[in-house]
Amino acid sequence: SPRYSNEIYKTANMPGVAVGLAYTYVGGDILFIETLLSEGKGELKLTGNLGNVMKESAATALSYLQSNAKKLQLNSEVFSQKGIHIHVPEGAVPKDGPSAGVTMLTALASAFTGRKVKPYLAMTGEITLRGQVLPVGGIKEKVLAAKRAGLKEIVMCWQNEKDVNEIDSNFIKGIDFHYVKTMQQVLELALV
Amino acid sequence: SPRYSNEIYKTANMPGVAVGLAYTYVGGDILFIETLLSEGKGELKLTGNLGNVMKESAATALSYLQSNAKKLQLNSEVFSQKGIHIHVPEGAVPKDGPSAGVTMLTALASAFTGRKVKPYLAMTGEITLRGQVLPVGGIKEKVLAAKRAGLKEIVMCWQNEKDVNEIDSNFIKGIDFHYVKTMQQVLELALV
Amino acid sequence: SPRYSNEIYKTANMPGVAVGLAYTYVGGDILFIETLLSEGKGELKLTGNLGNVMKESAATALSYLQSNAKKLQLNSEVFSQKGIHIHVPEGAVPKDGPSAGVTMLTALASAFTGRKVKPYLAMTGEITLRGQVLPVGGIKEKVLAAKRAGLKEIVMCWQNEKDVNEIDSNFIKGIDFHYVKTMQQVLELALV
Amino acid sequence: SPRYSNEIYKTANMPGVAVGLAYTYVGGDILFIETLLSEGKGELKLTGNLGNVMKESAATALSYLQSNAKKLQLNSEVFSQKGIHIHVPEGAVPKDGPSAGVTMLTALASAFTGRKVKPYLAMTGEITLRGQVLPVGGIKEKVLAAKRAGLKEIVMCWQNEKDVNEIDSNFIKGIDFHYVKTMQQVLELALV
Amino acid sequence: SPRYSNEIYKTANMPGVAVGLAYTYVGGDILFIETLLSEGKGELKLTGNLGNVMKESAATALSYLQSNAKKLQLNSEVFSQKGIHIHVPEGAVPKDGPSAGVTMLTALASAFTGRKVKPYLAMTGEITLRGQVLPVGGIKEKVLAAKRAGLKEIVMCWQNEKDVNEIDSNFIKGIDFHYVKTMQQVLELALV
Amino acid sequence: SPRYSNEIYKTANMPGVAVGLAYTYVGGDILFIETLLSEGKGELKLTGNLGNVMKESAATALSYLQSNAKKLQLNSEVFSQKGIHIHVPEGAVPKDGPSAGVTMLTALASAFTGRKVKPYLAMTGEITLRGQVLPVGGIKEKVLAAKRAGLKEIVMCWQNEKDVNEIDSNFIKGIDFHYVKTMQQVLELALV
Ligand SMILES: [Ca+2]
Ligand SMILES: [Ca+2]
Ligand SMILES: [Ca+2]
Ligand SMILES: [Ca+2]
Ligand SMILES: [Ca+2]
Ligand SMILES: [Ca+2]
Ligand SMILES: [Ca+2]
Ligand SMILES: [Ca+2]
Ligand SMILES: [Ca+2]
Ligand SMILES: [Ca+2]
Ligand SMILES: [Ca+2]
Ligand SMILES: [Ca+2]
Repeated sequence: SPRYSNEIYKTANMPGVAVGLAYTYVGGDILFIETLLSEGKGELKLTGNLGNVMKESAATALSYLQSNAKKLQLNSEVFSQKGIHIHVPEGAVPKDGPSAGVTMLTALASAFTGRKVKPYLAMTGEITLRGQVLPVGGIKEKVLAAKRAGLKEIVMCWQNEKDVNEIDSNFIKGIDFHYVKTMQQVLELALV
Repeated sequence: SPRYSNEIYKTANMPGVAVGLAYTYVGGDILFIETLLSEGKGELKLTGNLGNVMKESAATALSYLQSNAKKLQLNSEVFSQKGIHIHVPEGAVPKDGPSAGVTMLTALASAFTGRKVKPYLAMTGEITLRGQVLPVGGIKEKVLAAKRAGLKEIVMCWQNEKDVNEIDSNFIKGIDFHYVKTMQQVLELALV
Repeated sequence: SPRYSNEIYKTANMPGVAVGLAYTYVGGDILFIETLLSEGKGELKLTGNLGNVMKESAATALSYLQSNAKKLQLNSEVFSQKGIHIHVPEGAVPKDGPSAGVTMLTALASAFTGRKVKPYLAMTGEITLRGQVLPVGGIKEKVLAAKRAGLKEIVMCWQNEKDVNEIDSNFIKGIDFHYVKTMQQVLELALV
Repeated sequence: SPRYSNEIYKTANMPGVAVGLAYTYVGGDILFIETLLSEGKGELKLTGNLGNVMKESAATALSYLQSNAKKLQLNSEVFSQKGIHIHVPEGAVPKDGPSAGVTMLTALASAFTGRKVKPYLAMTGEITLRGQVLPVGGIKEKVLAAKRAGLKEIVMCWQNEKDVNEIDSNFIKGIDFHYVKTMQQVLELALV
Repeated sequence: SPRYSNEIYKTANMPGVAVGLAYTYVGGDILFIETLLSEGKGELKLTGNLGNVMKESAATALSYLQSNAKKLQLNSEVFSQKGIHIHVPEGAVPKDGPSAGVTMLTALASAFTGRKVKPYLAMTGEITLRGQVLPVGGIKEKVLAAKRAGLKEIVMCWQNEKDVNEIDSNFIKGIDFHYVKTMQQVLELALV
Repeated sequence: SPRYSNEIYKTANMPGVAVGLAYTYVGGDILFIETLLSEGKGELKLTGNLGNVMKESAATALSYLQSNAKKLQLNSEVFSQKGIHIHVPEGAVPKDGPSAGVTMLTALASAFTGRKVKPYLAMTGEITLRGQVLPVGGIKEKVLAAKRAGLKEIVMCWQNEKDVNEIDSNFIKGIDFHYVKTMQQVLELALV
């Protein structure tokens, strides 16, 4: 697991990549969100066997960033000058739901700013167009999967704190939890 | 519930956001309609796991506003110069039906005028292209959900007044009801 | 019912709105067809939970008007300079079939000419591209619904006259029937 | 039936309209193919509750005409300067199959040349891109329907002659049959 | 059958038409692939009740020709200046599978070069983007259908020779077989 | 099998073609990925009866190459100046899953650089947007199929080494295995 964690660190250590947490029918898992920008006209390409709700999270993240470009010291014109590709590996596994929203947001912001995401950091949470982070399900399974993978910090909605408190504290020793209300807080925590 | 109400106030206190009322299979609920404008060409993006009828409400609201731009002191050219994104949070829940029409209308009008929506105000009602507000179902459940959430005013169609009158008045103390016939009345009540 | 009739008069008293008659699984009903024009390139937007056949009626009405622009003293260029939105209220109810054709035609012609539709007038009938009005079903139910709503004149295909003759004349006292062969006759009767 | 025949004559007596024969689950029937041209860019709009194979017949007819424009003394540029709408009335009835091909071809050729189709003439037959007319089914039912409607001439594929010969000659007295091999023969017979 | 063969010869004797062999649920059959070019921008229209795999064969044939234009002495610009329509008659019969690939290729090459296909020649075989002809199924049924239709030469993949060898030689007297490896060989054999 | 191997060599010996390994319901098989470039605007055409996940692999490979153009000494503008067609032969067989990712990548890189793929080399593995190669299933069946086909080297993810070690070494004598972590390693091994 330290080796695995190290692997995550090395392969995710580039702008545009963020680590999320998923709860699938086989239990909790970690999830990479990968973003590449190319010359383009603002088109958004989504791959990785994603369902509609997960695709909508990406669209919501992008609109938020576009509308809040100044706060991130981004030139708002960049959004219409790039093609954006978001991929979520493990194409054999169908993925859906809104809980990757914060991870989509972080990966996109990382790609556009060129700032890497803090290493050993994972996150889960729905996002809204007005900048809120909403609570999601499967917290226990997601947190344990993050622990197994050697991750050290997890960002989630303040309304999910109660779900973390129900986990036996022995199982999650060494993990720092960040409870947030807004998408801006996520980006401040995540981008280095 | 006062705290929750306060939460709604704080997170919804920006142009482009309006509070609606929904009646789902688990009962009444409040619903945020969120709108962001960006540079664009009049394209309308709709997210939040919305069904076709709900998407049609957004298109109807937009056509109405475009056609009545002057009354709202809007430059009609703005509609072809913006990309419009409407999102309804809680992507895990499928949403449909025409009853969010007035809320769509209000959120869009708020986004285009820059005027915020009155705080602690919720609404429900179908809209038409000729400017009428039509009655909708689930009034009792919607009103009780508004009350639980700490909301203080509700706008609905005059033909729904009879449904409010059937609710035990003890349950809805402190809520002001506004019964309207036209979409223009909604906007006059809702935009501050 | 006189009050209801008055309501219809007031809310439908604007160019682009025509009253049709529908026969649904719950019986006869009246139906508003609403049209708004905006700056555009001839695109046709259709909302109101409409099936494909009903959408095709709108396309057929539009092509007919475009091809017969001169007769209506319309500049034929206007069709490529406007965006056209047709909406049929009560989004919760799926609607389909060809019988709203004459109403679609009338609402569109009213919107393009700026001439209102005669008050208290309803209509039902399929249209063709060569200008014919065809007979439709559910005449008895439609006529009784028009009577209940306080309407005073009904336009339909001459081949439907036999269906009206089968209705007990006590039930339809005070309604004037117009039996037509062509779409031009409909417009001459309907536009004031 | 003479009266009905007269009705067909009057309502179909304009360029762009041709009479076909259909064989549906309720028996043989006559079928109008209606074509209107407007300013456009060669786009083909098809309405009337048509299935994919019937829509493909229209596309095949159009490509053939475009490629054989000279033979019809048509300027080949006209095909990219018009919007083409083909409608088949009676929207409540789903229609499909290749047998309306010759009628589609004739209606289109009539619309583009401005030449009317010979009155009291019906036709049925599949078309190909290389100009052949192919045999179709339901000949007996189609021919009897044409007779009932007062039609006087029928065009079909030479390979369908054997099907006509099997019909009791008393039933089809007064109808002239034209057996053709090519689409050019159809147009020579049909356009006046 | 000599007469039928003669018919095939006469109706197929034009550039853009090639004869294939199909194996359907009713047995072997011959199949015409018809191609017409018109002014356009390289768009490919496919009709004749074709399944996706058969449509993909046409796209593959077109890409191959475009990429090997020089070998066929074609100006590569012609591919972006023409609209291409491929039709396979008998619209009532659904058609699918990769085995019409060589016939699609030949018909397209014939249309673009203006060279006719050798008369009394049929073919069957899958094609690839790198120019290979692959073996297909139903050889016995296809060959017997070609024989019945009076065809005299058949082109197929060298890996299908073993399937021909299994047919009683009395049944296929007078047919010449061409076993090929590449799409270039097909075109050299087929185009006159 | 030496003869078959030779066949593969000869038919695949051109830029744009790479050999993959598939695991279908009938067992392991080899798979050709074929790529042709033509004048275009960056559009990606995919044929060969491919499922959505396999199509997404192609899109991912293309975005990766576009974003890492410099490393491959490619002018990044070339991606918007070419039409790209990827075909996977044997159209009768539906194909899906992420395991052709490395082969898609290699075939595309080969087409864009003009460098051929090393002969007698096969590969299997999922790809990611950040350049990782991920493990896939069916290794035993794929390796045995490669052996039967006379292939001599196989590239796969380092996490699949354990699957190779479970195969009886007598069965895979003479095959060299390359275990990789990154897509860059694949391209260094594969392009000659
Ligand atoms: Ca996993
Ligand atoms: Ca997540
Ligand atoms: Ca809720
Ligand atoms: Ca609402
Ligand atoms: Ca009603
Ligand atoms: Ca009607
Ligand atoms: Ca009929
Ligand atoms: Ca016909
Ligand atoms: Ca046949
Ligand atoms: Ca064939
Ligand atoms: Ca194989
Ligand atoms: Ca592979």
